[in-house]
Amino acid sequence: MKTCGLIVEYNPFHNGHVYHIQEAKKQTNADCMIAVMSGSFLQRGEPAIMDKYHRTKAALSMGIDLVLELPYAYAVQNSDLFAKGAVQTLNAVHTDAICFGSESGHIEPFQETYKQMQTHSDLYQSILKTELNKGEAFPKAHEKAFYQLPKGNKDNFLDLSAPNNILGYSYLKEILDHNLPIEPITIKRTKSGYHDTSIHGEIASATAIRESILNTKEIPKSTMPHSTYTQLMEYEQKTNQLHNWEVYFPFLQYRVLTMSLDELSEIHGMDEGLEYRMKQTARHAQSLADWIEKIKSKRYTWTRIQRLFTHLLTNTKKSEIHSIKKMSHPNYVRILGMNNTGRQYVNTYKNNISLPIITSYSKNQSSLLSIEERASHSYYSILSPEIKKMLYQQELSGPILI
Amino acid sequence: MKTCGLIVEYNPFHNGHVYHIQEAKKQTNADCMIAVMSGSFLQRGEPAIMDKYHRTKAALSMGIDLVLELPYAYAVQNSDLFAKGAVQTLNAVHTDAICFGSESGHIEPFQETYKQMQTHSDLYQSILKTELNKGEAFPKAHEKAFYQLPKGNKDNFLDLSAPNNILGYSYLKEILDHNLPIEPITIKRTKSGYHDTSIHGEIASATAIRESILNTKEIPKSTMPHSTYTQLMEYEQKTNQLHNWEVYFPFLQYRVLTMSLDELSEIHGMDEGLEYRMKQTARHAQSLADWIEKIKSKRYTWTRIQRLFTHLLTNTKKSEIHSIKKMSHPNYVRILGMNNTGRQYVNTYKNNISLPIITSYSKNQSSLLSIEERASHSYYSILSPEIKKMLYQQELSGPILI
Repeated sequence: MKTCGLIVEYNPFHNGHVYHIQEAKKQTNADCMIAVMSGSFLQRGEPAIMDKYHRTKAALSMGIDLVLELPYAYAVQNSDLFAKGAVQTLNAVHTDAICFGSESGHIEPFQETYKQMQTHSDLYQSILKTELNKGEAFPKAHEKAFYQLPKGNKDNFLDLSAPNNILGYSYLKEILDHNLPIEPITIKRTKSGYHDTSIHGEIASATAIRESILNTKEIPKSTMPHSTYTQLMEYEQKTNQLHNWEVYFPFLQYRVLTMSLDELSEIHGMDEGLEYRMKQTARHAQSLADWIEKIKSKRYTWTRIQRLFTHLLTNTKKSEIHSIKKMSHPNYVRILGMNNTGRQYVNTYKNNISLPIITSYSKNQSSLLSIEERASHSYYSILSPEIKKMLYQQELSGPILI
Repeated sequence: MKTCGLIVEYNPFHNGHVYHIQEAKKQTNADCMIAVMSGSFLQRGEPAIMDKYHRTKAALSMGIDLVLELPYAYAVQNSDLFAKGAVQTLNAVHTDAICFGSESGHIEPFQETYKQMQTHSDLYQSILKTELNKGEAFPKAHEKAFYQLPKGNKDNFLDLSAPNNILGYSYLKEILDHNLPIEPITIKRTKSGYHDTSIHGEIASATAIRESILNTKEIPKSTMPHSTYTQLMEYEQKTNQLHNWEVYFPFLQYRVLTMSLDELSEIHGMDEGLEYRMKQTARHAQSLADWIEKIKSKRYTWTRIQRLFTHLLTNTKKSEIHSIKKMSHPNYVRILGMNNTGRQYVNTYKNNISLPIITSYSKNQSSLLSIEERASHSYYSILSPEIKKMLYQQELSGPILI
């Protein structure tokens, strides 16, 4: 069975994702499409609009055969650690190819860039350090260092200002650094930009779709398959909620106002005295957006602060992530859902999968899975006791089977 | 100026409290009535039905001249530490007498009991230890040990099964142990029992009044002065809330589900492995009452668990209370409100008051006051951002002056 892996958030699954799956299938001739998907919280430090199982169902009904969970400790991180978790999870289940979206749709600039970075690694590191010391945020410093490298083939130099390119580059780097038997493939992204927030026609970014849902309280049906619409409606009817950051604001404010500076400084991402800034601004914040505005600066970007708030909400410690960074790959594979094809694939190859396959929580689970469980509890914390219990029950009863 | 001190919670101020003030005035001929009152949380580990300032206003309009705050670290504790904080605060402002309610209204049984306990201290301690080791809760073990002491004058032996008698005994003990220049006076309590939850006529316990408000959503006007009714109405109109434990349930459940066992074990009152019991029961709890039922046992009484939840909500650590226990008295006196008589008293005697008089929070405040500030933030956490800000502003702007 030929397999193709996709690295996704599906927040929510939309028409652009359908195109991505179709193109990936076409280019790889894969019999089984495997998605590794973030769970409760996303890379930019946001709560998913609906829980992982409803997002899984939407994906399974539109061409994905097997959905694996990208563990929280990798999912809410910068691109390097994110890529490590995602690529190594796909490698553990022997994915033949990984297909990711990029601006140009050509793999050569990624390969060329990787070569240049290898050759000029010292130069890159030294410029990066200088820029960081100047107070630049990491993505900006990275971009600056990168553009000062000698350009081998100019036509093939990557545009690193596009978030999708940065992620794609990190996937390729993880594959090549570890010599993984995975073919990297890229396809051109559909026209809507990552940060585009307006909706025209059938293709819109997930960001634009979420904004539209939160602002107009209406789901833009034209931008998504019917199954996504159904899942969003179902989740909202069950829980009375589509998640966004503001509903967690009372918890975050309460936490910061009752934690000591020492306790705050133990949270992953609370670097360079950010705990003081956070505490000073906590009392007067009138909303989470207002609070982030008060903390943010050139160095502390909105995304960085959002991630920090996510780690605060989930009580994720520096020491925990420090241990996880030392691991060469996640220590389990968790299945969120599968169809017949996915089930057949898992049954056929399970003896070749080197990592334990996890479907639920257990008493003596790894720290990685404990963090996941905390992330789920944090995510559900704003719901009513009965709904909380019901959603947690789903986590215990294992994958969605369709 | 002759002063009389009362140790109160006023949760809320009712007709029994009016009687208490009148009797105390009659017996002491005091010109200035000073109340030391618990702030946001009460001795039995409950949130006050409305904030400290609205309760202060109700007290000031019914015969109290000066309201001081009993610091949280003393207020939410067993009777010994509670009494230390309260009596020492009143002593710091040179109160001539302390008047407390008791079942019989006679001071002799308290004095007799104190004498017996002094004489047979070793015996008492040894029985107490045995009973605790058998798994008895502290109040029960204390009572058992106490009743096994040789009774000097039997008629004058205290009934220690009544909560008010236990508190009264602790006040007297604090006065006599430290030889404080304060006259202890007791008056007979009005007919309603401490735990009586039904309402008949004009005298009802604070517990009964709160239950009635929470269950019927109506304030039993006949049981309280009009000023209390006004304050309750005003607070509810401002905040849309009269506080009870259930509104804090989402915060507590979230906290326990995202804290490690080590972190839980640092919380004051989390003894003898209670953290395991708390964690095991957290997921399935459908309300706070349901949760406490699941944790409670002969040894872990309802009150003890409620107190523990309060310390968890306010993030109060064993290490903090350990340091405070070593202090012979609170290290500040905080004024919550006063009328002209109170102000005159403070102005006349302030140079003789050995402790700093505090009205607000500040940057380099003592640990005792920092805990208080956290308790306030925890108490307000369930309110909307604007209301939170408004109530916190009151804490910064200092005492109520009428």
